[in-house]
Amino acid sequence: MTRTIKLAVIPGDGIGPEVIEQANRVLDAVLDGGDVVLERTEFKLGAERFLETGDTLPEAEQAAIAEHEAILFGAVGGVPGDPRLKTANIERGLLLKLRFDFDHYANVRPCALVPGVVSTLANPGEVDFVVVREGTEGPYAGNGGRLRPGTPAEVATEVSVNTAYGIERVVRYAFQVAESRPRKTLTWVHKTNVLVHAGATWQRIVEAVAAEHPGIAVDYMHVDAATIHMVQNPSRFDVIVTDNLFGDILTDLAGAIGGGIGLAASGNINPDGTFPSMFEPVHGSAPDIAGKQLADPTAAILSAALMLDHLGLAADGDRIRAAVRSDLAGATDRGDAPRSTTAVGDAVIAQLPARA
Amino acid sequence: MTRTIKLAVIPGDGIGPEVIEQANRVLDAVLDGGDVVLERTEFKLGAERFLETGDTLPEAEQAAIAEHEAILFGAVGGVPGDPRLKTANIERGLLLKLRFDFDHYANVRPCALVPGVVSTLANPGEVDFVVVREGTEGPYAGNGGRLRPGTPAEVATEVSVNTAYGIERVVRYAFQVAESRPRKTLTWVHKTNVLVHAGATWQRIVEAVAAEHPGIAVDYMHVDAATIHMVQNPSRFDVIVTDNLFGDILTDLAGAIGGGIGLAASGNINPDGTFPSMFEPVHGSAPDIAGKQLADPTAAILSAALMLDHLGLAADGDRIRAAVRSDLAGATDRGDAPRSTTAVGDAVIAQLPARA
Ligand SMILES: CC(C)[C@H](C(=O)O)[C@@H](O)C(=O)O
Ligand SMILES: CC(C)[C@H](C(=O)O)[C@@H](O)C(=O)O
Repeated sequence: MTRTIKLAVIPGDGIGPEVIEQANRVLDAVLDGGDVVLERTEFKLGAERFLETGDTLPEAEQAAIAEHEAILFGAVGGVPGDPRLKTANIERGLLLKLRFDFDHYANVRPCALVPGVVSTLANPGEVDFVVVREGTEGPYAGNGGRLRPGTPAEVATEVSVNTAYGIERVVRYAFQVAESRPRKTLTWVHKTNVLVHAGATWQRIVEAVAAEHPGIAVDYMHVDAATIHMVQNPSRFDVIVTDNLFGDILTDLAGAIGGGIGLAASGNINPDGTFPSMFEPVHGSAPDIAGKQLADPTAAILSAALMLDHLGLAADGDRIRAAVRSDLAGATDRGDAPRSTTAVGDAVIAQLPARA
Repeated sequence: MTRTIKLAVIPGDGIGPEVIEQANRVLDAVLDGGDVVLERTEFKLGAERFLETGDTLPEAEQAAIAEHEAILFGAVGGVPGDPRLKTANIERGLLLKLRFDFDHYANVRPCALVPGVVSTLANPGEVDFVVVREGTEGPYAGNGGRLRPGTPAEVATEVSVNTAYGIERVVRYAFQVAESRPRKTLTWVHKTNVLVHAGATWQRIVEAVAAEHPGIAVDYMHVDAATIHMVQNPSRFDVIVTDNLFGDILTDLAGAIGGGIGLAASGNINPDGTFPSMFEPVHGSAPDIAGKQLADPTAAILSAALMLDHLGLAADGDRIRAAVRSDLAGATDRGDAPRSTTAVGDAVIAQLPARA
């Protein structure tokens, strides 16, 4: 019996279409000969679309996307400083709108250093952790405003909104992730000594949920100290749970130490299944290298693997990860010669292990 | 003619007193034989004091501190999780209160990798930049609160307050720092694509002040991307200006890549001279290693050098920095054997160059 999965694809801007093309090829290859078929609908959204039509995320398209089982997302954003984009905010109006409206409260970003990958750290040690970033509130809420804009008396506020509802569900999710991993360690990261209100709420909830998970070792770290540990001793991390902004910052840093942002995958997960979850490389649209076959599609390919896990196809997700690992392990033999975006896709496909 | 400088000293908790002791010894040695005399008043403040008397920062003591020309600050904070400190917030009630009440709007944190210092990065290249962190507003304003605390309907807010007044003065200060440096480059860091209100105010002001400094090359970076650049290519930075929270995070990361937080100095500067500026190592009180002569006093010693610069004694500040540099350069010869806190102080004093 064939299972048909409706997949929404949003390639986006810059290198987005190139890397998504390879992710799609790898998906087709890994599912080939099995009983799962992807039925794709492509949505042309992003800065380019905005420049053509003035649309950021039309309601009808958002409703159509919601009818899919999952979303594969490339990257959005035009050339920095493009004056025609001055009035647009593609990030807030498209990417964050999807995360918020589709209630992607668990933004899951694994970081692992695998053989063949050169770290920016002198002595990285074993690196294998996952950041669970809250995805629907905190400083990203969009609350705030500007009083007397453009005058010397201007005041701008940004209101971080943190609810017990929102924190508890992502903390529960992170504990579940920790339960599924051998080291069973969870580090929660905040800045409780300064952001005392939100910090107190986070602390209360982490402690309450921790009491239900006696098998998980829990520790706390201020976000500033977490950056130090991440570059001095990243092997101490197993699962990190943190708020939306701290998670944004820490996962870029994690990407950098885990072999570069070209390898960093993410899932914007709605664990309740009310809306489709969305899978995207952590990197941006990199307009400066777009269309030149210079982008590394590995992050997009690994994001597709996370998508398969989420769709109950973890065996196929594992096959993609195995192929990526053996491709990366070959880096030393290949030397420094850069490969085209398509060549990386070819190599991963060639190394897909047979179905078990 | 002898100049007497009234110096307030707040050694604080944990390793604070140990490292400040060495900074004071180095100060005495560098000023010895010159025409400047330090008249010190010590203030016992911090977690230990709170546990003894219940005081965090009594008004009379704050007024007394304000009568000094500068403040040398160690580190404050008790043992994490100490239940007796649950009701205290030493950081907000003492350290941040001093920064805010004394209008330390330019928090200056240099980061340089010098010979003999091993970086956590595999290929750091030349590292020599300074972060100018806003010190009196932003997410540190302390605005916000908790609604329905302890219930499932709890909501906690943190309000980042950003004023044109507050941003302009620190941006102006940062441009001045950039003008004084050979590379004449300023990077401003924010998260304008998400924190659109505060981001717009920052952008407007940076652009306006930049127009007055045509000789300075200005670029912008999102805070998440800044962490990547800091670990992949830190030599691209010269002067960074950013908000209070982003500055907190980036300077811990900078400390880590610049040879460790044991070397990171800072000045909480009130450039207007209305209140005494305060000089402190970026590291915390590290209660786990306190009293064991294990702490590196270098950050405190370099903070004292920044203090001398601020007091118009840059030649003596330079002498301290030269001594620290030659001490650090000897690390390779010394091997891995750790030195006591006092031994580092001794070594720096022994290597102080003669007065020019
Ligand atoms: C593009 C931007 C809005 C986004 C974020 O801040 O979440 C990105 O940095 C990320 O981490 O996915
Ligand atoms: C102790 C804490 C309040 C402080 C801060 O957040 O500013 C510290 O981390 C620093 O960077 O000086």
